[in-house]
Amino acid sequence: MAIKELWAIGVDLGGTKVEMAQVDEEGNLDQRIILPTDVSGGPSAVKAQIIAAIRDIQKKRGSSPVGVGIGVAGQIDAQQGVVRFSPNLGWHDVPLRSDVSQAVALPVVITNDVRAATWGEWIHGAGKGSQDLVCLFVGTGIGGGVISGGHMLSGCGNTAGEFGHLTIDLNGLPCRCGNKGCLEAHAGGWAIARRAQEAIRKDPAAGVHMMGMVGGRHEAVNAKIVAQSFREGDPLAKGIVNEVFHALVAGAVSIVNAFNPCHLILGGGVIEGLPELRDRIAKEIRQFALKAATESLQVLPAQLHNDAGVIGAASLAMHLSEKEQLFE
Amino acid sequence: MAIKELWAIGVDLGGTKVEMAQVDEEGNLDQRIILPTDVSGGPSAVKAQIIAAIRDIQKKRGSSPVGVGIGVAGQIDAQQGVVRFSPNLGWHDVPLRSDVSQAVALPVVITNDVRAATWGEWIHGAGKGSQDLVCLFVGTGIGGGVISGGHMLSGCGNTAGEFGHLTIDLNGLPCRCGNKGCLEAHAGGWAIARRAQEAIRKDPAAGVHMMGMVGGRHEAVNAKIVAQSFREGDPLAKGIVNEVFHALVAGAVSIVNAFNPCHLILGGGVIEGLPELRDRIAKEIRQFALKAATESLQVLPAQLHNDAGVIGAASLAMHLSEKEQLFE
Repeated sequence: MAIKELWAIGVDLGGTKVEMAQVDEEGNLDQRIILPTDVSGGPSAVKAQIIAAIRDIQKKRGSSPVGVGIGVAGQIDAQQGVVRFSPNLGWHDVPLRSDVSQAVALPVVITNDVRAATWGEWIHGAGKGSQDLVCLFVGTGIGGGVISGGHMLSGCGNTAGEFGHLTIDLNGLPCRCGNKGCLEAHAGGWAIARRAQEAIRKDPAAGVHMMGMVGGRHEAVNAKIVAQSFREGDPLAKGIVNEVFHALVAGAVSIVNAFNPCHLILGGGVIEGLPELRDRIAKEIRQFALKAATESLQVLPAQLHNDAGVIGAASLAMHLSEKEQLFE
Repeated sequence: MAIKELWAIGVDLGGTKVEMAQVDEEGNLDQRIILPTDVSGGPSAVKAQIIAAIRDIQKKRGSSPVGVGIGVAGQIDAQQGVVRFSPNLGWHDVPLRSDVSQAVALPVVITNDVRAATWGEWIHGAGKGSQDLVCLFVGTGIGGGVISGGHMLSGCGNTAGEFGHLTIDLNGLPCRCGNKGCLEAHAGGWAIARRAQEAIRKDPAAGVHMMGMVGGRHEAVNAKIVAQSFREGDPLAKGIVNEVFHALVAGAVSIVNAFNPCHLILGGGVIEGLPELRDRIAKEIRQFALKAATESLQVLPAQLHNDAGVIGAASLAMHLSEKEQLFE
């Protein structure tokens, strides 16, 4: 695929891996670099990984991008360009933007990784052209982003869209945030693993199928194993997936009633691992959300998959560059 | 209080009463008219009530308002000026704006009543000057409105803010919307009445205090009776208020995590009838919502009480008039 003249570099920085690529105006991606994040090396080591990759991409490309967009798993002060807190990276108050920008002599924007993915789905993915969309990403954790009236919502402290922490069950399961009954504690990847491991511990006979898949290593039972086991007809996995399904419907109904989006985009590893849930969720949203809130609603699968963050971060940099709001 | 030169007429149209007044630029209200809504007379009778009141206010005032704002309990097509559906009024597709506008020869804007109240709290009430606020109104029903990044959210079909239908309990109580576990089904005024009446039916001895207050008329036990009984130390009422409290915390936590507002404004009859809940809710939000989402949060009481709708509708008319977006 030919890369267009105007391009940017997108970076998706997580606690496990950092993914970088060049992205053109149409969302085409090239020169993908994926590295395990050097978390133990601290911020300077991770910055060095990003800076080296940017130089590498520029060199191979033989020209300069309009800028760099970095999506980071954590709480971001976008205006100051500072990563306030990232549990996955173990970072507090890291001035990521200025450090990277100075090193590569390019304008840089940083944003939250889920916000970047939402931007990607909005500009180049399932939500192209929409003025009112919500992305709900169900992976190990659950998060999302909102475009309402053509504006990306950020909130007062830049944390809008924490859909993993909608309370869907007053008396529900404990969440790692300290609360209970959160959507994430019922349907996030980590919670699916917890639920499966607990069920197997309680009833080892029922867990034989899943335990066989992981060679008896109890702690290796995760959301992927549950999904595969579900597809193979295992009753225990079926029960778990059913619980996850009901939790996701409750969360999605809350979102649709609160935001009244035109498009609800469902993505993330758990949803992509259980694609059969998507149509069922869409059907139950129509059944249980307010009629007025679903009249114009379309429920769509995310399109950019794992590239949403990289494409979104780069597109955000391009967008700000066009508006002359991207600074070194 | 002296009414300023620039003024508008605000109308708050509900199924029980219609309230109208003149409102100036600073939110001062005068010439209040409150009538029982002539629901049985149909749209033409109600329009006649509104038109007569507008003429009356104009005549007494001796000058013309910049326009009329009407907040209606129901689903509104603001662009077309049509009340799509109002269960309380029994209306379907009533072209309220053009009919009123033609009769009084003034520009008119119509909006949802809760949206109007949010506008009122934003421009002249507890949320003055805020860029990111959420209003949560807990009355017979529960609804709300959102300002995010300085914009009022409307959503795809103009129904954003239906917080009464956040699912807070997967396995919860049936709601009149057809779903179960909705915030409104646990904490709305009608649900409080239902809960109390059921509790009294199950355990008449425990219900003696409340039944005494309503002269034995079971069906007269409502949210007001529960609140008063709670304040008088009745254990049954205390238990019910405690359940309502937990439901409201769950809903408020969901809202704070999803929208990350700077200001959460709590209003409506149930909240105003149980003002002691407000501080407790604020405290528990801080305990159970994400730290990042509550860092800049202020939880505030609504300031305009029953006038929020009238003041908000009039202020919206004034705002659109200034922007030259208010049309006859």
